[in-house]
Amino acid sequence: MAKHEGDCFLVPGPVRMNQRCLEAMARPVITARGGEFRDVMADLNSGLRYAFNLAPSQPVKKTHSWSSEDDYKVMVVSGSGTAAMEMLIANRFRPNDLVLVPTNGKFGERVAEMCKRFCNVKHIKYEWGRAFDLYELEQQLERGCYEALLICHNETSSGITQDAPAIAEMCNRYNTSFILDGITSIGGLPVHLEKWNVEAAAMGAQKCTAGPSGIAAIAFTTKFYERCKVIREQGDSNALFYLDIISAFKKGDDDQTPWTPAINLAMGWSEALNVLKEEGLENRWSRCQNLASGVQNLFSHLGFELPADPFHRSSTVTAIMYPEGVNDQWRVDLKEQYATQVIGAQDHLKGKMFRVGSMGETTKEEMIEGCKRMLECFKKHGVSIPEVDVDSFF
Amino acid sequence: MAKHEGDCFLVPGPVRMNQRCLEAMARPVITARGGEFRDVMADLNSGLRYAFNLAPSQPVKKTHSWSSEDDYKVMVVSGSGTAAMEMLIANRFRPNDLVLVPTNGKFGERVAEMCKRFCNVKHIKYEWGRAFDLYELEQQLERGCYEALLICHNETSSGITQDAPAIAEMCNRYNTSFILDGITSIGGLPVHLEKWNVEAAAMGAQKCTAGPSGIAAIAFTTKFYERCKVIREQGDSNALFYLDIISAFKKGDDDQTPWTPAINLAMGWSEALNVLKEEGLENRWSRCQNLASGVQNLFSHLGFELPADPFHRSSTVTAIMYPEGVNDQWRVDLKEQYATQVIGAQDHLKGKMFRVGSMGETTKEEMIEGCKRMLECFKKHGVSIPEVDVDSFF
Repeated sequence: MAKHEGDCFLVPGPVRMNQRCLEAMARPVITARGGEFRDVMADLNSGLRYAFNLAPSQPVKKTHSWSSEDDYKVMVVSGSGTAAMEMLIANRFRPNDLVLVPTNGKFGERVAEMCKRFCNVKHIKYEWGRAFDLYELEQQLERGCYEALLICHNETSSGITQDAPAIAEMCNRYNTSFILDGITSIGGLPVHLEKWNVEAAAMGAQKCTAGPSGIAAIAFTTKFYERCKVIREQGDSNALFYLDIISAFKKGDDDQTPWTPAINLAMGWSEALNVLKEEGLENRWSRCQNLASGVQNLFSHLGFELPADPFHRSSTVTAIMYPEGVNDQWRVDLKEQYATQVIGAQDHLKGKMFRVGSMGETTKEEMIEGCKRMLECFKKHGVSIPEVDVDSFF
Repeated sequence: MAKHEGDCFLVPGPVRMNQRCLEAMARPVITARGGEFRDVMADLNSGLRYAFNLAPSQPVKKTHSWSSEDDYKVMVVSGSGTAAMEMLIANRFRPNDLVLVPTNGKFGERVAEMCKRFCNVKHIKYEWGRAFDLYELEQQLERGCYEALLICHNETSSGITQDAPAIAEMCNRYNTSFILDGITSIGGLPVHLEKWNVEAAAMGAQKCTAGPSGIAAIAFTTKFYERCKVIREQGDSNALFYLDIISAFKKGDDDQTPWTPAINLAMGWSEALNVLKEEGLENRWSRCQNLASGVQNLFSHLGFELPADPFHRSSTVTAIMYPEGVNDQWRVDLKEQYATQVIGAQDHLKGKMFRVGSMGETTKEEMIEGCKRMLECFKKHGVSIPEVDVDSFF
């Protein structure tokens, strides 16, 4: 196998962009209202449907590229994944609605925090990386008082992917809407919105689809949108403007946006999604999974502690505790002396853990080389590590 | 004078970007939390202070690049100018506050519409392009019931710039906060936030500063921010998350953003602002004014009707009514046969008017060539136009 040369960029987003994506971003200006941009939007919509694992649509304007034969529509948001999640939450719930949000990491907690601004929340907080107690969730759903259950599907802060099929099954059994923050899962690991009967989901460009940061998307069902409309008509909706789904919906069918969109980001993301199509969605899922398994098996074998529940470790990010005596200086040295970037931890785990991304277009060669450099750097920091054949873990 | 070759792109935003801006946008990925991005943010903050016509700051991280010796701070918003205005409005007013919004075009009406979502509004609607009745506004301010007066400073829909100095003077006399939608004025025509005692203002990158669309900024005083904080502490604020100024403020002093920013747009805009610095802010103001005066004098001389009040015509956009018998097909032909883009009208003036942008980096040569092509295209559409020396109007 050829050795990876140059930098290893193993960060769980923003991930490295393809040269084609970068070049598309540098295209000269076009207007936001003309036919050229509507071509871009149609292409992007079609690419988004592919990444969301939905029925295909034509990448051609005036063909309702945002919809297809299933019950979902996709919509671009000129903002981060957080903006996309807010668009789902703020439009879908009235201030008096009650939602259930189980969490086991920072981004789930952000979903709960966001919900708290716009409605009432039962927030069930688990230890970072620990799987949800499905029995406890079921007891909650049995109460019949929740408008929806929301999860951060893939928790990058602790490296765990939630058991979405099981949670979906429960939501359906108790007739509760299921909403997914898929910002770091969609495009990188198996997501089946239709099979799981997910009412709406959000994704961010700069994560699994290797697009630029600052642009995101949502997918939602007719039921979701009708509920947003009823709430608005009844006059007890949350106040919002930029992220108003009703304004965006009116323009969506015409491949347009209500406010000036991030034109160059849309062009870049569209090209990144073309790259994804060429690889194939399932091939990408497999590649991410193989890379993550390799990292997880390697570091576990070497005695490192991984905080995520072993049965639900993420395919797009691996969280690894530092051994005794190592802190974030290791990460600085890794970057400066080994040209390899991974990311630190957040909140209470800051300085105690590092995280390795395996999303986007990272190759096996890059991951293997990156792992070798990590081990070298640990040795330099006084950690005793036996000689291992890193390649054999992948 | 050298003749402009190639396309004439005379649209009032998104405007043509400099090659340096495009190249900066295509730089490979960097993380949103590391030192490299904080360098970008510091550079951008410093450039924004320059464009906002505020006291200078160092383009160096950890130097509080967002503030300086005056009482203003600047803040980047990963969204359009509409998002930036919403950030000002939704954070600054409680649902029960009353604000005054005079308008004479679509974007002013959008400001009023946005305010309606977050607080109470007295909306005084003037005909598009007609100057505000300052006597009427003074009578309103005399009532002492308004928390603030908000205007769209430069109305691109009808080509009028409001008399900000006179309005500012009144606001100060009646101790009413003055908030400016400067999305299409800041960086393109004289704006004096400090002299006018403007409490807060918003701008969009893709307009006068010739940056990419999808990123914007606000400038605000200590008084503004303190008021937002008090409202939040009192618990009667509007619900919001992505555009929460309190979250953004906490990160701002460290050259960071609360959510993942639009990294590549920040790099591109920063470079566009460097280009602005090299030209000089006042030089740009003059250039825009000269271009707009030329267009206005030329078309007035030829008998075209300009809807904007003659004393308050904009320096960054000129709105011109079509002569009898011409419609938007003219604009299509202008683009296809003369490689020249201008923009149509909005709402009730659609198909009756066109608009010529003179913002960003448009040169005199390009504007002259564009005007010549416009006249040719009008002739082709059967409009009788005498031979004129277009150059002599500039």
